Amino acid sequence: LNPATRLSQRQTVLEEVTAPISKPLDDAIGLLSSYMRNDVPFVDELLQHGNLLAGKRLRPVLLLLVAGSLGKIDQRHISLAAAIEMIHAATLVHDDILDGAQTRRHQPTIHEKWNNPTAVLLGDFLFSNAFYLASTTQCAKACELIGSATNLVCEGELLQLAATNHLNTSSDSYFDIISKKTGQLISCSTQLGTFFQQKADDESRWFELFADMESFGANLGIAFQIQDDILDIAGDAETTGKTLGTDLQNQKATLPIIHALDILSPEPRADLIRRLRNPNFENRRYIKSTLEQIGAIQFAKEQARIFSRRASDCLRNLPESECLVSLRLLTEFVTSRDC
Amino acid sequence: LNPATRLSQRQTVLEEVTAPISKPLDDAIGLLSSYMRNDVPFVDELLQHGNLLAGKRLRPVLLLLVAGSLGKIDQRHISLAAAIEMIHAATLVHDDILDGAQTRRHQPTIHEKWNNPTAVLLGDFLFSNAFYLASTTQCAKACELIGSATNLVCEGELLQLAATNHLNTSSDSYFDIISKKTGQLISCSTQLGTFFQQKADDESRWFELFADMESFGANLGIAFQIQDDILDIAGDAETTGKTLGTDLQNQKATLPIIHALDILSPEPRADLIRRLRNPNFENRRYIKSTLEQIGAIQFAKEQARIFSRRASDCLRNLPESECLVSLRLLTEFVTSRDC
Repeated sequence: LNPATRLSQRQTVLEEVTAPISKPLDDAIGLLSSYMRNDVPFVDELLQHGNLLAGKRLRPVLLLLVAGSLGKIDQRHISLAAAIEMIHAATLVHDDILDGAQTRRHQPTIHEKWNNPTAVLLGDFLFSNAFYLASTTQCAKACELIGSATNLVCEGELLQLAATNHLNTSSDSYFDIISKKTGQLISCSTQLGTFFQQKADDESRWFELFADMESFGANLGIAFQIQDDILDIAGDAETTGKTLGTDLQNQKATLPIIHALDILSPEPRADLIRRLRNPNFENRRYIKSTLEQIGAIQFAKEQARIFSRRASDCLRNLPESECLVSLRLLTEFVTSRDC
Repeated sequence: LNPATRLSQRQTVLEEVTAPISKPLDDAIGLLSSYMRNDVPFVDELLQHGNLLAGKRLRPVLLLLVAGSLGKIDQRHISLAAAIEMIHAATLVHDDILDGAQTRRHQPTIHEKWNNPTAVLLGDFLFSNAFYLASTTQCAKACELIGSATNLVCEGELLQLAATNHLNTSSDSYFDIISKKTGQLISCSTQLGTFFQQKADDESRWFELFADMESFGANLGIAFQIQDDILDIAGDAETTGKTLGTDLQNQKATLPIIHALDILSPEPRADLIRRLRNPNFENRRYIKSTLEQIGAIQFAKEQARIFSRRASDCLRNLPESECLVSLRLLTEFVTSRDC
């Protein structure tokens, strides 16, 4: 399939998934856009460019689908959907500095179009503005859930930074890092979607649902990140719209690499390490084809599907609804997507 | 006076100022220290180093003195004093990247001891953790006040970044920038100190006091920043414990420079601009002595005192107390300090 067809397929899936929440999702994205404006022209320009870099809106979609599957969606869910997407945007702006990524969503990244200091400050502004937006729900618990998730996101990113250049990262460390840096914010979205839907008459069932939704997001986040890591090695830059191969460039050991180093015999293993240490174009192509040949990409895909199935299992206690159908479809899409 | 005598004088002033709040201040600093720990050894090491970089604890001291001058200090004030200092620490860690500063409080800065990505992520962690800590008051208004102040801090920093290398910055722009980047967080501290002290029986007086305290912090913050900018040009590195001359290095036009460019006749003005464009050691020494000779340092000191007096005027409606005596002393100290 060519990139255009792939993108249009993805568009179709996303339209189907978001159909039951199209109105509140529009409201959340509208609210987000209104918070991505500023009276100061320079700040306004940065915010608007930052808004272009956002992608699939996975986190607000999940928050609203979970909320919609448990009851009526209200203004607090809409504000929190916008807030969680703004936190995500902040992490993207800062991640792009760390990774030296030049493009995202077919656009130059902030540090590339302006410079590193501008990207540091824009990310800070987005973090702060997200907490401000969350506080407009007048519920401190919203800031608490987002704050504790974002703490772990940063912890995961710091762990990942410390593991950079260490090709002997274990798969345990890998899963610890991705469950924090990606799983936490996705789990926070599904927790926030559940939070305001407590029925006074059925507290114990609600606590069970809250734990299910926390676990749903955590597993889905891990599946999502494994797939992202696969695409960074084996994906197509035009389809994904972002700089690929940055993990190899930055000597970040992701699951396919970790698995390959685990299973290869000493000689080809030493050869792979040599090429990983010098990730030029030729070596990156060789690494990709080696990982495909020895089944390391396939192994990582299977792992992603395991976590996606675990996520799916966490949906078992939700009542049948259009939102639930969408949650199932989205859980499937996370590991089948090629963009 | 030699640096050791100056530091011991400062110590005496700070001890006198903090005497009426010594117990809650210890509690706040203890709470902050407990939030500056982490189970992950690498993150823990970063946080502990970050904790060493903090200085005068001006923001928690102000918050607690304002709270103490209006009523009983409770656990919420202590949590917010720790939270506001953590936000301040986050901005220091990121500012040091932007300024390329190598030392702070006689310690290497985070990006200097580790690297830029580590400093970006540590700052993010501190922002997030501060909002988490604020949410433990179970009052969304705390996150709202901190969020809206931090938004303006980032806006001020972005404006300052955009003005870098533009030696034709006007004094209006300068005051706009410093009232946002420094005034806002100090004003937020005095607002938070007031916030939980509302007496149910006297709402209109409380609103007046809240506005007074907001304005007190805003004016004090401007005075504080002017003095900081004076010290960057005319201070002593050993006494302040940080890299000085960074504004000149980064071609940041601060009040003494702006005033000098305003009053100089064309020829010495052109000479000053030439030297500002090439801030080597020799030129920095020349700039410092020129600014002193033509009274530009003196002018900036007078401006700082004007804002410090405006701050002092805002204290007029507070009841007489030991905390009020300290607030007056601190307001005086902000413009007389040389470290």
